[in-house]
Amino acid sequence: MSALTRRGFLEKLGAGSVAASLPLLLPSVHAATAPYNGPKLNVALCGLGNYARMLAEGLQASQYCRLAGVVTGHADKAAAWQQQYQLPPQNIYNYNNFDGIAHNPNIDVVYIVLPNFLHKPFTIRAAQAGKHVITEKPMATTAADCEAMIAACNKAGVQLAVGYRMHFEPTQQEIMRLGQQKAFGPVRYLEAGLGYKTYNLADANDMVDINDDTQWRLHKTKAGGGPLMDLGVYCVQAARYVLGEEPVAVTAQFGPVHHAQRFTQVEESITWQMQFPGGAAANCTSSYGFNIDKLYASADDGYFELSPALSHGPFTGKTSAGILNIPPINQQASQLDAMAQYIINKQPMPAHINGSEGLRDIRIIEAIYKAAQTGGVVKLV
Amino acid sequence: MSALTRRGFLEKLGAGSVAASLPLLLPSVHAATAPYNGPKLNVALCGLGNYARMLAEGLQASQYCRLAGVVTGHADKAAAWQQQYQLPPQNIYNYNNFDGIAHNPNIDVVYIVLPNFLHKPFTIRAAQAGKHVITEKPMATTAADCEAMIAACNKAGVQLAVGYRMHFEPTQQEIMRLGQQKAFGPVRYLEAGLGYKTYNLADANDMVDINDDTQWRLHKTKAGGGPLMDLGVYCVQAARYVLGEEPVAVTAQFGPVHHAQRFTQVEESITWQMQFPGGAAANCTSSYGFNIDKLYASADDGYFELSPALSHGPFTGKTSAGILNIPPINQQASQLDAMAQYIINKQPMPAHINGSEGLRDIRIIEAIYKAAQTGGVVKLV
Repeated sequence: MSALTRRGFLEKLGAGSVAASLPLLLPSVHAATAPYNGPKLNVALCGLGNYARMLAEGLQASQYCRLAGVVTGHADKAAAWQQQYQLPPQNIYNYNNFDGIAHNPNIDVVYIVLPNFLHKPFTIRAAQAGKHVITEKPMATTAADCEAMIAACNKAGVQLAVGYRMHFEPTQQEIMRLGQQKAFGPVRYLEAGLGYKTYNLADANDMVDINDDTQWRLHKTKAGGGPLMDLGVYCVQAARYVLGEEPVAVTAQFGPVHHAQRFTQVEESITWQMQFPGGAAANCTSSYGFNIDKLYASADDGYFELSPALSHGPFTGKTSAGILNIPPINQQASQLDAMAQYIINKQPMPAHINGSEGLRDIRIIEAIYKAAQTGGVVKLV
Repeated sequence: MSALTRRGFLEKLGAGSVAASLPLLLPSVHAATAPYNGPKLNVALCGLGNYARMLAEGLQASQYCRLAGVVTGHADKAAAWQQQYQLPPQNIYNYNNFDGIAHNPNIDVVYIVLPNFLHKPFTIRAAQAGKHVITEKPMATTAADCEAMIAACNKAGVQLAVGYRMHFEPTQQEIMRLGQQKAFGPVRYLEAGLGYKTYNLADANDMVDINDDTQWRLHKTKAGGGPLMDLGVYCVQAARYVLGEEPVAVTAQFGPVHHAQRFTQVEESITWQMQFPGGAAANCTSSYGFNIDKLYASADDGYFELSPALSHGPFTGKTSAGILNIPPINQQASQLDAMAQYIINKQPMPAHINGSEGLRDIRIIEAIYKAAQTGGVVKLV
């Protein structure tokens, strides 16, 4: 997608004029006026599951970075990707020789698309190798791991970003604007739900985006939790970026378990509520047991809603003022372009997409789990 | 609305064929094949607020009953209604001389449209006067009051119905069918929300449907509770009639209070969750602080949703199979016709619309309040 086209969206959304007051919005620096002709960042994808394919497409469409290498534990995948994307052999790594990437000047960024529990070790290894890091969400399985990742990247002097593509997607940017600018007055109540039904192994396999034949998302130590970690993070993000506030307290309830043999370690479904300092409440749900993909915000003078809302899109919705139908973009390219520019320009990754943002989400998720386990209100600092 | 037209809707919905297996649906006895020409039931409306106007229109359209009298504390309203509907002077009562209705053979049914706390005393007085009773929802402010009302009607040998108009409304009947017949497989998750914002006195006054200048809905003893009692009962009903099951446990959370001077006795907003024995969960909200009017049901093989969903309609929605757009009817006439036929035919009022149903809802609402107050899971028998 060209900068010109993207700029058109941004103008339509008014993002340029509001960026100063809305820290969560895409800064206007990305509304480039001319195609970029400088050197591209070289990105190695670490983990070659389903979502890596979408990122590879994003890299193909990117102006500011390119797919330069891969890291995978499967030799057959390495060969297939090498051939398809014409990758130099010296840019292909496995999990054992990965640290040798420190000596490879032709890789600038490692993009980690591994199961959750591997985000931490590979972020730290990449940082120690002197590479900038983008890691997929959720950032890690614990807040302590997030802190270790941030420390490692700071120590190594590399940038750390979390794959929060929604911040670079125009429909999400529009609901950020509607909420944060109080286009319909202050939002009082927000519902956000994201769930995918995975009743059978085939469904579950579709969700596995890493060369790991086990159902890692069902293992507490590998996933960090159930659908709340994996999908609920989108609901937490949405509530935060629509309101432009941080939750101060949460309550939560584990949902019923239909497939007890499958959900022995993590929840099948969960509902939770977040209180925000401005007085808004969010009521959310995530599930591996049923499908849902919705967002609804009730404001004093109107409403806005999306469905599909929080998946890969295209997102559609409406507001009390009419239909909300913004043409879809290549979200991965948009995210990669934005993040690459910060790296190229040696500007610090902004707080809404860097490791501190990932840490905030994981702290909230940990509070939600604590609330569900205790039945009580868990306050956040 | 003619019986023929209504029959057309029922045939379209397949209600006749499913009535036997779905106790919550309108029984097929009401799919009359010819206009009714027998004597009409004479109904006195007790309380002349906004909703009494809608009931009066329903009575005008009814085949089986007519508006025959009124009970009101306001002489000017009595005069206006008497003139508008050409009511005989002897069928006009106030709250002091109401018990004299016992000697009036021209009133068969008293329909109570008073503030919640008055449902009990006027139900008991009407029953003791030998009149059948229909009372608006919520049936009463406590389960104990519901029990006393049921006992009084049983003792007097009169019928008792609660104004559950949704059971006679074709869009609601359709979602009952979709849920109970598992048209998209079993429903796993259900969201239901009904809220009206009442930030200023004018808004609040619009909601006062009784000749009482005070904001009775904000008084615990008069309303029995806040939006949960008044609006949440629709969400409780919807979850129950979509699933065809009774909840076994509830959790609940009071929402933030924006208008502390107004909400000193009852909640401004509340969220709550209901667990059902078949394994479904419902996540609901009611509010006087924000607008919401939505229902969403996620089933194994699809979904259905309405918005507007639970107000006065017309109701619109969609399912995973397409648009759900059933022409609206006069809901009050439909309800009144159905209830009148049970009385005329000396058939007991079915369990899904009689006092036992009102009691079930109030017991659930009491459990929801207990859960919100304690923060714990409250189990229902």
